[in-house]
Parts: sequence; structure tokens; C-alpha cells
Amino acid sequence: MRIALAQLNYHIGDFENNIAHIKSCIHKAKTLPADVVIFSELAVCGYPPRDFLEFDDFISKCRDGILSIAEECKDIAVIVGAPSVNPSDKGKPLYNSAYFLAEGKIQAVFHKTLLPNYDVFDEYRYFEPNRLPYAVVEYKKYKFAVTICEDIWNITDDPLYVRNPMDELILLNPDLVINIAASPFHYGQPKRRRDVLIRNAKKYKLPFFFLNHVGGQTELLFDGGSMVVNPEGNVFDEMNYFEEDLRVYNLNDFIYKDKKEYREDANTPSKIELIHDALVMGIRDYFGKMELKTAILGLSGGIDSAVTLVLAARALGSENVRAILLPSHFSSEHSKQDAIELADRLNIKHDIIEIDKAYSAFEDLLKPWFEDLPFNLTEENIQARARAVILMALSNKFGYILLNTSNKSEAAVGYGTLYGDMCGGISVLGDVYKTQVYELASWINRKKEIIPQNTIDKPPSAELRPGQKDSDSLPDYSILDKILYGYIELRKGPNELIQEGFDKEMVKRVLKLVNTSEYKRYQTPPILRVSPKAFGTGRRMPIVGKYLS
Amino acid sequence: MRIALAQLNYHIGDFENNIAHIKSCIHKAKTLPADVVIFSELAVCGYPPRDFLEFDDFISKCRDGILSIAEECKDIAVIVGAPSVNPSDKGKPLYNSAYFLAEGKIQAVFHKTLLPNYDVFDEYRYFEPNRLPYAVVEYKKYKFAVTICEDIWNITDDPLYVRNPMDELILLNPDLVINIAASPFHYGQPKRRRDVLIRNAKKYKLPFFFLNHVGGQTELLFDGGSMVVNPEGNVFDEMNYFEEDLRVYNLNDFIYKDKKEYREDANTPSKIELIHDALVMGIRDYFGKMELKTAILGLSGGIDSAVTLVLAARALGSENVRAILLPSHFSSEHSKQDAIELADRLNIKHDIIEIDKAYSAFEDLLKPWFEDLPFNLTEENIQARARAVILMALSNKFGYILLNTSNKSEAAVGYGTLYGDMCGGISVLGDVYKTQVYELASWINRKKEIIPQNTIDKPPSAELRPGQKDSDSLPDYSILDKILYGYIELRKGPNELIQEGFDKEMVKRVLKLVNTSEYKRYQTPPILRVSPKAFGTGRRMPIVGKYLS
Repeated sequence: MRIALAQLNYHIGDFENNIAHIKSCIHKAKTLPADVVIFSELAVCGYPPRDFLEFDDFISKCRDGILSIAEECKDIAVIVGAPSVNPSDKGKPLYNSAYFLAEGKIQAVFHKTLLPNYDVFDEYRYFEPNRLPYAVVEYKKYKFAVTICEDIWNITDDPLYVRNPMDELILLNPDLVINIAASPFHYGQPKRRRDVLIRNAKKYKLPFFFLNHVGGQTELLFDGGSMVVNPEGNVFDEMNYFEEDLRVYNLNDFIYKDKKEYREDANTPSKIELIHDALVMGIRDYFGKMELKTAILGLSGGIDSAVTLVLAARALGSENVRAILLPSHFSSEHSKQDAIELADRLNIKHDIIEIDKAYSAFEDLLKPWFEDLPFNLTEENIQARARAVILMALSNKFGYILLNTSNKSEAAVGYGTLYGDMCGGISVLGDVYKTQVYELASWINRKKEIIPQNTIDKPPSAELRPGQKDSDSLPDYSILDKILYGYIELRKGPNELIQEGFDKEMVKRVLKLVNTSEYKRYQTPPILRVSPKAFGTGRRMPIVGKYLS
Repeated sequence: MRIALAQLNYHIGDFENNIAHIKSCIHKAKTLPADVVIFSELAVCGYPPRDFLEFDDFISKCRDGILSIAEECKDIAVIVGAPSVNPSDKGKPLYNSAYFLAEGKIQAVFHKTLLPNYDVFDEYRYFEPNRLPYAVVEYKKYKFAVTICEDIWNITDDPLYVRNPMDELILLNPDLVINIAASPFHYGQPKRRRDVLIRNAKKYKLPFFFLNHVGGQTELLFDGGSMVVNPEGNVFDEMNYFEEDLRVYNLNDFIYKDKKEYREDANTPSKIELIHDALVMGIRDYFGKMELKTAILGLSGGIDSAVTLVLAARALGSENVRAILLPSHFSSEHSKQDAIELADRLNIKHDIIEIDKAYSAFEDLLKPWFEDLPFNLTEENIQARARAVILMALSNKFGYILLNTSNKSEAAVGYGTLYGDMCGGISVLGDVYKTQVYELASWINRKKEIIPQNTIDKPPSAELRPGQKDSDSLPDYSILDKILYGYIELRKGPNELIQEGFDKEMVKRVLKLVNTSEYKRYQTPPILRVSPKAFGTGRRMPIVGKYLS
């Protein structure tokens, strides 16, 4: 029994290309050869399809896709994910299903039991959980237990669900377990996934074949890393991260036939390398799937736009990225030099557009109303917004997409101008704390200096008033980021944080800043997700609330 | 048995005030007198608390609140909603519960079984459904069946859930059914709710006491309209819409003791009146709960900003609203006159700030890059964005909150400038189609002309280039809105719409505009929700997708 895993990058709703890609892999798998080829969860329509699932037209296209794939299944079997219609008049109208296709038709359909509905997941919004008795499918004398993503995750000491599908499936004496998944990336996820698979394999003493999505779906990034774990609980093989892959395994002896590269656990990329690679893939797929080619960004000489520029160049090619310096009379000379230096090193075309004339025009227009009121946040915001108008004008005129360069620390405490530096089509660093941005910069510079050392060394500043530094209004990032991580990622309350030794007033102030900035984050671009708790769809907070605020 | 229903407006996370408000109503109910007083679903913390529920600190504040309310329950019983902790080590950590408090302590806790997880609802994200055997609580010789919102909604011919709690509760021979709810408004909801209650009362031959939230929670509006339905399925009484209310009913004879106003079904406000009142409440509560007082908006002379201005004046008082005219050389003289006329009629202070100097500054700055490229969308967007910079500067300097004036038709097809006219703290008309905006204007003008007739009569125009009209680039709104309603509210696909007689090319074009504008809507302000399917949290679509696009 030779099993092929096809780790592919799908495009949500693009049935024509998804199905063509699946079929071409079926043909390729036949030549390897393979007896069965496995595709991931909801492969036919892409994951997550969100409310497209509420359209009958969309569902019937999924069904047509499955039937058309089934026709290719001669001399080979296929396991592939797609929604299926709940035939009962009770419960939600759909299941999240895995189809077993062979001999030109549907042989069996399995429904997902455990529907993740936390963080970025909304599966119970669309799907009825499986309530049918479990079954295995027999093919070429082997009994397959087919599970879908979360179905094998209820194995922790604090189970989220009352039911554990594997405990029921094991009673049917399967020979192997297939898990088709759409398990999105965060920097801790590769290890968690491996742990879950190893726990399962050891507990049930079966080989587990785990097949994941790969690719960016707006903010959700899928890292691939599909893997095979043997019944002793050893990782037999792990597929590529952040790119497509197709490999075949012989069930009998786990002899790996089509090996290009073997990742030992020890070779797993470091956290910061994973984040780097995920962000590059996220930019590339955002542009590629939107059929966009070129990016623009405001290059300030600071660390955030510098790191964003490097990532964009790696994702899109230097020739497809345009850097604009937008200095005002508050901008320091070294910032301009650092920015130009970086653009030159990356071979990126840069332009300089001085914003003072636009700023003065607004100042003049508003003079009759502002009279002699002192310079304050208003004037800082006018500068940031004038920059946004210019960047968006270039974007509109030439078709560039504006990359947002805000980091997670800023986004958390609302240290940014709505409709100013918070603009953009996609936020590259919005899930990367400032201290992690520095780590990314070091990692980028690990072999040779790409980002000017001065950009890394100088104290962060928005340069919106003379001599301004971030530290004028924010705690030191090394402390701020720890408090934010405790509050955002770990959901610790003020008392827990204070008990850990953080200053009481600082904790209160930071949590208040986070909670009262919700209205700003609501209007920011989608943020490439690399942490277990990113701003955006995975973190849903009231805007009008009064809690720790 | 005298039952008081306390229909209150809560503030999410504001435990101190929510609890004080509940206690003061308990005291008031004692004087009526009442034997039991009912508060709504998750009253203690406000609804929807969203991810605050993931914080132990938040949950313990809910628990403390319940205990402190229980202490007031002497000589009176209370039913009140709050989360409770799931004691099992399996399943989600919380229940959505109703507490029965009497004699100074918790007598019983009932958990919600049916957890809505569609449209704006995310309850399965947080809560474990009740799996315990049902129970009733006996108080003063009456058996109370206590249900929570959705628990009585599974009574349609196409039930969404496999279980129906009332079918099990009825076996325990209750004397009455209490339903505490947080049932958000849309214009069709009052009728739907009445139908569901009547169906239940008739089926189970019991009196139903339905108690709803009232008030705005950012985009979610709760209309109140709590009601009592007798066992024959007649609506005995319906409480006020869009305002707090406290009434007491004698269970034995349904004699209504504290009547100010009795709404027959026939007196139910019309759809457009409901929308009007909901929007006014939504603005008022957004500002009130954010502790904000004053609003600003750009008044163009067009219908959208005119209607928004009237609604804002009604919500906040004319003295708290500021209208800014921001004409360019493309603005027509009649637009300015209409805008001034309206502001004067409403006694609203207006100012005129000509944007041409700001526009020219950007034109000059960009000249070296744009050279002789023709005027296009870019220049239109610069005008809209220059206006936004000015409005936001006034907002920042003086503490006004910018009201967004975009309508649902525009938002649907992406006819608006991101970071320009799509800015604002809250969108007032973003769930109101253009044709409904006209209906609102007529309703506002029904007794005397408030909005200048010329604003209503003239063809809609963004006035961003000479002689521009909306109809240059969009289908007539009377047709466009029907296609949008079919696609957005009714989830009809292209084939269904074409079969209904809409032009094939127009349907394709409109659906493509909707789907490819997702990236714009992602970054817009929260939209006051008045329809069954508003943009925002209740409609979750992929940004990077390829479906009907």
C-alpha cells in the first residue's frame, strides 16, 4: 500500500484551478506510483471559505468538483476534503467532509466531529458535527480510519470536547489513520502538531498520516509540514514548510521513496526563521492570489519599514517593490540616509517626496479654527495622514499595493494614526512585537548587514515632533512587550500580571491603552498571523466596553 | 404570583454600573410589588462580552456580581443572566446561564442549550451547551421553566438544532416559561420574535415571559420589545422599543398593573420607523457609553449626509453636532445651499472649509511622478482623502467623533474612498440601502420639510469630477438595491438572480463588485446593524478569494 500525500496551495473559491491542481497531482501520483493520494481539508473550495458556504451555488460547485475528481480515480484512490450536504431536516445544513473516491465514484464520506470554534476558527457557524456511528473504509485489504483536523486533537489533559472520535474509531480495528487538515500556522504550531500526532500514534499504536494545507489565505497562513508518524510515535517524515510538496510512503515498511530533504526534529527552523518564512509566504500569496504584482511602502529609516521592505523584496522581487521616503522638517538626516542605504542595498527604487507643502496647506486651511491652540497629537496625525494620501495616490495611479508597516506593540497600545500609518492592503508586522521585529532584523542580518546597523541601534521614534522618541509616551519595549504578551497571548488579567512583578500602574495603563484602542484596530488592514493570538479575526473584543479601561 | 420584567440597557464590562442598575430595579420591583423580577441574558456583564469571556478576571467579576445581587434577594426572587463555570474537565470552560436567586442566595442555575453561532452570534466560541437533564425551579408554589433566548427558537419547520429544550422541559409540568434574551434588532426581528413566542405558547399551552436587552452595543442594537404571551398564543403585552422599561404582571389573571402605553400589533412601528429609531438609539449609545458627547460630519448637500445629520441631531442634540462643508471646485452651488439650509433648519453650527488648496498641494507634490497622466480615480480619491484629513484634524483637536455617512449600496459595490469618505468612528447608514435612505428622508419629512426637497430630488453625485453622477458608473439604485438584497440578505447566487429576470451581465458585474470590495469593507468603521445581514461581524467573507469575482 503506497500512500501519497499532496500538500498543495489552494485559492478560496477558485474551483477551476483547485480542481485542475488536484487532478494533475492524481496523475503524478499514479506515476510514482501510489495506491492512494491524500488531499487536505476542504481542498476543493480552499480553506477557510467563510460565508461563501451559505451560498447554494458555492456548495453545488463543491459537489460538481468532487464528482469530476472521482472520474479521475481509476487505478488509484483519493481522499479529499469538501463540504457535503446534511440530508437530515435537523441541524445545520452542511458537514465538513472527507470523500473517499475510487473506481470512478464516491465510495464513502466521513464527516468531521470536532468543529473548532475558537480563535480564528468558525466551523460551528457552518457545519453540523458528525453524529453518525463511525466507520472505516477498506481499500486493497487495508482499513482506513479517515479523520479531519481537529478530530484527533481532543487528546490533551483538558479536553475541549466531550467526545473523542479516535476512541470510537479504534474499536473498528483500522490499519492506519489519515488526518486531512487545514491547520494554520503560528510559531508554536509545528511543535504542538507534532506532539498531538505523537500522542495519538502512541496511544492508538497506529501509523498516522497527517496532511496539511500550505499557503497564505489573506491573514491566515498555512505552513504545510505534513507528516507521517509511525505506530511507535516517531516522526517518520515531515514535509516541506511554506511550500507545496508531494511524497509517497510505503505503508508496509515506511520506506520513503521520493526523498529530497529530510528534516530531523533538530532541523526544525527556529521560531524567528518560521516567522520570517511565514511572512514572506503571506506577502507572496496575498499578491499572487489577488493577481497583484507590485508593492509600495513608506520607508522612514526606522526598523519596522526596513524589515517590511526586506520581506517584501524577498516575497515579490526587488523590482516589484517601491520605497517612498516622505520626510518632513521633523525627519532626521540619519533617517533619510538609513532609508536610502537600505533601498540601495536591496536594489529597490526609491523616491523622496517632502510632505511639508501638504502639511502646510492643511495648517493654513485649519488656521481659522485652530487659531493659536498648541501643536499636539492633531498636527502629528496630519503628517501621518498626508503621507497616507500620497502613498495611496501612487497606489491608485500605478497599481501598487500599500504595505502596512505597523508592529504588534504599536497596534496593541494604539500608537499609530488611523488613516495615516495604519493604512495598507495588508499588515506585514502587525502580529510581530517590536522586540521580535529586532529579532527579525538580526536574523536578516545574520550573514551580512542588510538592514543598516544604525536603523537597529537608534532609539525608535515616530519623528512627528522635534526630538520625539517612542519611550516618551510608552514603557520600554522590553517591558511593554512582556505585559502585552501576558495580556493578549496568555489572557492574564491585571492581578496576575502584577503578581508576576510588573509595576501596578504600568499594568493598568497598558491594559487600558489596549482596551481603548479597539476602535483603531477594527479599521486596520488584515494582519498576517504568526502568533497564537493575532489581532483581527482571531481576537474579538467589544469596541464600546468598559473593562480595564 | 406577580412577575416584573426589567428591560434594561447594560454596558459591556461595566460591572459596577450594571450591578447597581440591577439592584435598583430589584428595589423598585419590591415596591410595585413583585414576587419575582427578571433580568436579561448575560445582564451582569452585558451582551455580547466577546473575548472578555476568556479572561478569568472577567468571569470572577461576573460571579462576584451574582453573589452580590443574591444578597438583595430577600422577599423577592430574581432571575438574571451571567456566565458560569463548567465544573467538568471536559468541554468548553463556560456555560451561558440563568441564575435563580432567592432568600439571599443562588437557588438554581440553568444553562443555555442552543447556542447561536450564525450571523453576528459566536456563542459556541465560548460556551458549552447544556447537556444536563432539564429541571424547573419551584417558587411560591409555581414551577418556573427558565430558558435562555435561542432555547425556544428551535420551533421552525427546518430546525437548526437536533434538540428542542422545550420538548423536554414540558415533561416537568411547568406553570410558566421565562425566556431571558439578548436578541438583537433588525427590522424583521420584532415580527419574527412575536411569531416564535406565539408558536411556543400555543404548542406548550403555557404563558411565556420574554425579556430582552435594550440599547446599543457598538454595531449591535437591542430593541427591547419584551413581551408576555398567554397560553392561547395571544400577545398580552409588549414593552417599549428602544428604551428601558419595567412592568409587572399578575400571573393568575394577566392583569397589567403599571401600564403607560399598550401596543397592539397594529401599532407596531413601521419598518422605516423602526430603522429610524434604532439608528438614533445606536448613535446615542455609542457616544454615551464611550463617554463622548459631540459629533462631526462632512455635509455635502447629498442625501446620505443629510439623513445622517438629522439622526445625529436627534440622538445627541443639535448643540452637540457640527457640520462641515468641504467644497472643491467640482462642488455645485446648489449642494452648498442645500447643506447650509439643512444645518440652519436643524440649528446646527456649520463651517465651510474649501479643500482646493490641500488638493493642489498634493497635485504639486505628485506632479513629478504623475506628469501628464490623465485625471482619474486617483484624483477623485485625493479629494475624498483631503476631506478626511480635515475632518479628522477637527476631530482630534476638539474631541468630536466623525460620523461615517456611507450607505449600504455604496459599501456593497465599493463606491467610496478608503481613508476618505469611508472614515469615521461609527457608520450610521452602512446597513441602509440607498433606496431606504430616501425612505428615511421621506419619513423624516413626513410632517414638514426638514431635509431640503432638492437634496431628495436631485440625482445622486459624489461631485468629484465635473458633471459626475452615480448613475455614470452604477446601475440605477432601484435595480442595484434589489440585486444586492437578493445576494446579500437572501444569499442568492447568480443563476437564481438571473432567473428572477435581472440582466445577466448586470448581475455578474454587481456580484463581482461586491466580492472584490471585501478589502475595503474590512477597514471600515462598525456599522449600526438594522437589517438581517449587515456588513461587519455578521458577514464574514474571504478577502483573497476567487468566486464570482
